Amino acid sequence: MSDMTKCNGKINGIEGKTPFLIGVAGGTASGKSTVCKRIMEKLGQVDMDNAQRQVVCISQDSFYRDLSKEEIVKAEKGQFNFDHPDAFNEKLMETTLRDILEGRKCEIPVYDYKNHKIRKDDMVTIYPADVVLFEGILVFYFPEIRNLFHMKLFVDTDSDTRLARRVPRDINERGRDLDQVLHQYMNFVKPAFEEFCSPTKKFADVIIPRGADNLVAIDLIVHHIWDILHGNSHPNGLNNSRLGTSSDIRR
Amino acid sequence: MSDMTKCNGKINGIEGKTPFLIGVAGGTASGKSTVCKRIMEKLGQVDMDNAQRQVVCISQDSFYRDLSKEEIVKAEKGQFNFDHPDAFNEKLMETTLRDILEGRKCEIPVYDYKNHKIRKDDMVTIYPADVVLFEGILVFYFPEIRNLFHMKLFVDTDSDTRLARRVPRDINERGRDLDQVLHQYMNFVKPAFEEFCSPTKKFADVIIPRGADNLVAIDLIVHHIWDILHGNSHPNGLNNSRLGTSSDIRR
Amino acid sequence: MSDMTKCNGKINGIEGKTPFLIGVAGGTASGKSTVCKRIMEKLGQVDMDNAQRQVVCISQDSFYRDLSKEEIVKAEKGQFNFDHPDAFNEKLMETTLRDILEGRKCEIPVYDYKNHKIRKDDMVTIYPADVVLFEGILVFYFPEIRNLFHMKLFVDTDSDTRLARRVPRDINERGRDLDQVLHQYMNFVKPAFEEFCSPTKKFADVIIPRGADNLVAIDLIVHHIWDILHGNSHPNGLNNSRLGTSSDIRR
Amino acid sequence: MSDMTKCNGKINGIEGKTPFLIGVAGGTASGKSTVCKRIMEKLGQVDMDNAQRQVVCISQDSFYRDLSKEEIVKAEKGQFNFDHPDAFNEKLMETTLRDILEGRKCEIPVYDYKNHKIRKDDMVTIYPADVVLFEGILVFYFPEIRNLFHMKLFVDTDSDTRLARRVPRDINERGRDLDQVLHQYMNFVKPAFEEFCSPTKKFADVIIPRGADNLVAIDLIVHHIWDILHGNSHPNGLNNSRLGTSSDIRR
Repeated sequence: MSDMTKCNGKINGIEGKTPFLIGVAGGTASGKSTVCKRIMEKLGQVDMDNAQRQVVCISQDSFYRDLSKEEIVKAEKGQFNFDHPDAFNEKLMETTLRDILEGRKCEIPVYDYKNHKIRKDDMVTIYPADVVLFEGILVFYFPEIRNLFHMKLFVDTDSDTRLARRVPRDINERGRDLDQVLHQYMNFVKPAFEEFCSPTKKFADVIIPRGADNLVAIDLIVHHIWDILHGNSHPNGLNNSRLGTSSDIRR
Repeated sequence: MSDMTKCNGKINGIEGKTPFLIGVAGGTASGKSTVCKRIMEKLGQVDMDNAQRQVVCISQDSFYRDLSKEEIVKAEKGQFNFDHPDAFNEKLMETTLRDILEGRKCEIPVYDYKNHKIRKDDMVTIYPADVVLFEGILVFYFPEIRNLFHMKLFVDTDSDTRLARRVPRDINERGRDLDQVLHQYMNFVKPAFEEFCSPTKKFADVIIPRGADNLVAIDLIVHHIWDILHGNSHPNGLNNSRLGTSSDIRR
Repeated sequence: MSDMTKCNGKINGIEGKTPFLIGVAGGTASGKSTVCKRIMEKLGQVDMDNAQRQVVCISQDSFYRDLSKEEIVKAEKGQFNFDHPDAFNEKLMETTLRDILEGRKCEIPVYDYKNHKIRKDDMVTIYPADVVLFEGILVFYFPEIRNLFHMKLFVDTDSDTRLARRVPRDINERGRDLDQVLHQYMNFVKPAFEEFCSPTKKFADVIIPRGADNLVAIDLIVHHIWDILHGNSHPNGLNNSRLGTSSDIRR
Repeated sequence: MSDMTKCNGKINGIEGKTPFLIGVAGGTASGKSTVCKRIMEKLGQVDMDNAQRQVVCISQDSFYRDLSKEEIVKAEKGQFNFDHPDAFNEKLMETTLRDILEGRKCEIPVYDYKNHKIRKDDMVTIYPADVVLFEGILVFYFPEIRNLFHMKLFVDTDSDTRLARRVPRDINERGRDLDQVLHQYMNFVKPAFEEFCSPTKKFADVIIPRGADNLVAIDLIVHHIWDILHGNSHPNGLNNSRLGTSSDIRR
């Protein structure tokens, strides 16, 4: 158990139950988090008390590490690479996921994008759940983390489509101007995608083209999760146990 | 209804019931038919009387058209392109799938690979089923057929991996020698894949990398089908109707 | 000889001399025309009277066809697809290139982007030259035209890089807003690239990655042209004739 | 100067002259070495005394390192990865290329494929030359080596085409059987290509599709080298110095 995450094992009568852990990777603006949101909505897990959720979605963004003073200066000039593996607290990600897999209650950081600091007095509690989605550009990059997933999805959207989505988003939501957005994309986002994210596509069990508009693929994942939640018994020949659907984890 | 397929609507009490139609495309030796076989096995649909099956798997190979005498001569010299759309009876494929979608009993041809003829006195009966898999290199090529699928899977395996699988298969199962196999691959199979099959990947709802070894992806499809077979009712927010999972068909 | 191009064969003492014809294809903002410009500059062909040039560069954009009234209305709403093969006067392109190959003086249209009309009283004269560059997104699309080139270059730049170049260019040079630019890109430019331009990369003799920053590749082309201009004789074993360097043309 | 290569600076009156160094990378059976052979032939550099050659071609295969006893055992079972960067003597490659760039006479190892040993009493002398081609799957992998090239070519051939070429070659020339060839390809050659060679394509100045059949591209390279050999003076604006055509080396 990490020092950053405070977990507590005696809860909800499902202590120790291993949740089904799904990794969702893909480039920036590929639709990863929207796909996860749609899944949560279709499963009726959105308007619900945190502690009651059977399905939980966690973003890799919660695991940005604290930046040093020098790095903060760089970040403010748009010269820090937030898409590089070094920007993340790999250790914390791993211990948190291991805690989750052991059915422990966890607390995960809230990242303060303004000050590039983790808000330690503002953690989010993750209660034990049946299914956990973990999404981010680099969730398949670190082998220790990659091997924890029972299912690995890669949301695969063309790079120009992703840029066409990201440009207005960055301008409207983050108040940047076009030049800044394009500069950051070409100098940090794109090279990091090509070096660190794109090569992890080969680890995916299922590739979801296009992203959130792909209702058929979302529905497929939703059915799978729904079966897990309802403990559907299966006919002979259908693998009954959750671990039976794991990929890397058993290799 | 086509003249080639003899269908009969009054059977099994499920007359008129629209089956869930899944298209499975991919290049030669990508693992399409093995993926389908694994799905059938996991669902316990293999050792079963044809008429009892809830899930049926049909291959595009059943719809090769009769070759003319000149074409047979070419085929015997390894100079006929069996990977070209023109090698198939598109009309028969379409009418058969439409009959199937309307819940009618159908008969589909058995292709005689030796004589390059359809064996008309040796048709296979396809009884109405809940789920129908239709697999082949070009099942997403013809728009009229592509738009019939409720779900479109593309089994995506690297071209060199596919060739490495196909070479021993063709040598061992079809008695060809290495030169013939490579010649046919380079002159017919590969160009046809690149021109007609590969561009249809963009129509896929879900891309299954690697093929039959991808147990996680197969399990995902199996769960979805299993839910359909068992008419699982779903919670609020989960789309309950089969048509709700269609892709192109509703566009 | 087309009716649109007025050519005249008796000029410059090089009548009938077949120029070396280089096709330069690539997606929007790939750097095609800048590569051509750099080549012209390095060869000292820029600040020069039109009639004196040994190397001439022609853009496919000169061969947009006149739009009908309905099409002009569409174009003004940003709903006409200028990246589609149908937007071009294929016949005029072909006859012009054939005239050029026969060493005839030609006149090519000037396209009036504002009114979407060819300015017939404002043609540009193309004098017989030693080397002709013809650049555009679809110059390898039409087989009749593709087969005329002695050398086929494809400027290959990632799609997101191309979009990142095109967005500020369209905003600054054409006075459009971001939404219009992205809308046109996603709805016309990108699908047309994928359907009509990208598949022609396979016809290229040489692929130039990145575009105009690629000084080594530009220098390579410049040397080749310079040798042609100076009629350098070559040692045994080096193919001496220009036609000897052709690709498709001899097949 | 390395201890393995014995170089001697006082020769031929061109001591100290920096040759133009061209790197030629590409996957197995892409056509790298045949492209180099064609270039040598077209430049009349083949039937010639070693010491007289103006253009020299060196293969990365000369720089395999000696295998340990354990590795030899593995190699004999087809379980040693000859496509991995670790199989090469990177240091020797670098010092040799640096010696060559400084115009020194060098001796390079002859690799004994049977015993997996360098034959130290059987070195090949490389005399100072005007142009040096260095070809191999990983010549752009090591940054120290990559940055030495004045021009970087990548011979880009589809992976299935490469396998279709390699299979008969390995069977006929190396006496292996089909299973061994495919096993080695799938387990060593392909993964190493994808991890170490393919990502270096982005460093190429020029991409040569298809390989040795691409006469237009070969001719282009031949002209460039021929110009270098003949010290052709160039018009204003044409970069006259060899270093002027370098890529990485000046960055």
